[in-house]
Amino acid sequence: MTALLDLEAPLLRFEEALAELVQSEVLFLRLIHQDLVTAGGKRIRPRLVFLASRALGGAPFEMELALAVELLHSATLLHDDLIDDAETRRGKEAAFRRYGNAVSVLSGDFLLSRLLHVIARTGRMELVERFAEVAKTLAEGEVLQFQVAALEDYSLENYERIITAKTAALMALCTEGPALLREEPLEVREALYRFGLLYGQAFQMRDDYLDLMGSPEALGKPVGGDVREGKLTLITLRLLERFPEEAGPILRRRGREEGDLERLRALARTSGVAAEVEAAIRARAEEAVGALALLPDTPYRRALEALARAEAVRLA
Amino acid sequence: MTALLDLEAPLLRFEEALAELVQSEVLFLRLIHQDLVTAGGKRIRPRLVFLASRALGGAPFEMELALAVELLHSATLLHDDLIDDAETRRGKEAAFRRYGNAVSVLSGDFLLSRLLHVIARTGRMELVERFAEVAKTLAEGEVLQFQVAALEDYSLENYERIITAKTAALMALCTEGPALLREEPLEVREALYRFGLLYGQAFQMRDDYLDLMGSPEALGKPVGGDVREGKLTLITLRLLERFPEEAGPILRRRGREEGDLERLRALARTSGVAAEVEAAIRARAEEAVGALALLPDTPYRRALEALARAEAVRLA
Repeated sequence: MTALLDLEAPLLRFEEALAELVQSEVLFLRLIHQDLVTAGGKRIRPRLVFLASRALGGAPFEMELALAVELLHSATLLHDDLIDDAETRRGKEAAFRRYGNAVSVLSGDFLLSRLLHVIARTGRMELVERFAEVAKTLAEGEVLQFQVAALEDYSLENYERIITAKTAALMALCTEGPALLREEPLEVREALYRFGLLYGQAFQMRDDYLDLMGSPEALGKPVGGDVREGKLTLITLRLLERFPEEAGPILRRRGREEGDLERLRALARTSGVAAEVEAAIRARAEEAVGALALLPDTPYRRALEALARAEAVRLA
Repeated sequence: MTALLDLEAPLLRFEEALAELVQSEVLFLRLIHQDLVTAGGKRIRPRLVFLASRALGGAPFEMELALAVELLHSATLLHDDLIDDAETRRGKEAAFRRYGNAVSVLSGDFLLSRLLHVIARTGRMELVERFAEVAKTLAEGEVLQFQVAALEDYSLENYERIITAKTAALMALCTEGPALLREEPLEVREALYRFGLLYGQAFQMRDDYLDLMGSPEALGKPVGGDVREGKLTLITLRLLERFPEEAGPILRRRGREEGDLERLRALARTSGVAAEVEAAIRARAEEAVGALALLPDTPYRRALEALARAEAVRLA
């Protein structure tokens, strides 16, 4: 993990640059940004950018790329607060509850405008085009998730489409981006793209797993949010397929009855479905690691591998 | 008005290009876009682009610019539906009432991603940067309007800041954009920027005037929306200043009592405040016309002048 320590300096500069980028003369924008953007979070996406950049020997405009991916992610969170009706976000009260949906949505738009500014700074139109694609995919993924829940159009295929679109596509840009900026050969770009995509899928699979099976204390929020919103995930899809009579009624009533969530959790544990899903996450993470094989063996590549493998055991 | 007829061909191509640009594999996105984007609207912003472009002899990528400004405007409308709690938008039920706030916000994000795509197509990073500035200004203007209403921080200065940020800045980009794309000398760019800015201010002043003084039949929506949302405009600011005892209580209770709006309208008419505001709009439109003086006298310049002057009399 010494490689991760090397990231401290760029991550500190990142925080400074981010805080400067979201300055505004408008008071309400300052308030909401203090709350969401400058209050931190795990900064997984900038970290991916810095690691991928360094695994290649350093990319020009890595800071702009790191800022851009975090801005897109933060804007999505702000627009997501409405959708998920999340009671907590990063352990705090969701921003919109204090300032109203309006300011939440507009603050997201403000962040998107700053994203545009920061990618313009790179002078690389291909990067603008990639952000356009990923932003489109992200919006489509979120709407698809909403549509699948509304139409109860549940399937493994739709689950894979959703996690790829709403999470993995942006992570793929985090790791592909440095290769694009360095004008690396296509196979290097593709290897890093594949790593980010597979890592992102494993990451979302783990998030979804924890949403049902995790500990509320470790997560800092109640479990079962997806069940309440009618969003089926790998674990509930398998339970529904395997135990339609036990899981079906609970999922259809969105876990609203006393003890519903505990019954789902117990069923997942005793039936082995939870363990199967953990194995699927581990396999996805190993696939991600495999994609890096053609990169030189550096501490940065090993740090990317460690990040992926951590998805098999992450608790929060 | 023959010059306006010349716009029919580009405006038709515009509709086709827009419909193609917002295609998506996701059903819910198709539904919302049929509703908002392809159902029309006045297309004032693309019209400004085409007129300004032709007033200069034609600009490269005028279609991309026209698409981009309309996409930014449409995304703002979708994100605005939440804010304004608009009961009707372009004479139809607001999109979010049918599909939920979530899909409305995400559809706006989808349009923004297509905006990014279409400006990338121009290959002009300066245009990306200008869109970044305008998108920032737009979001700040909307939040400022919300903030001013929440803090009751009403002033003429804030009113000018809000109409400039939320409306005029984008219109200025509509008319400046073709000069940027043609790499015209700075004074030409500035003249067209100033025209768009002043025209946009006159336009928003007229919209705000009609919001109180217009006819619900002509507008296709009830009047008094701004009063209900605590948004002071030129006319209510002047009424409040001049007749604090009559207008103050009505505005503070946001016109909620029977006959409140009719009393405000009557007061504006009999006191001459309505006529003063109309004169202010006319003066702003004439200022806009003045900004075009250095352009060659063409049917396109005259069409821009006619558009500005129409703000003095527009009823819907």
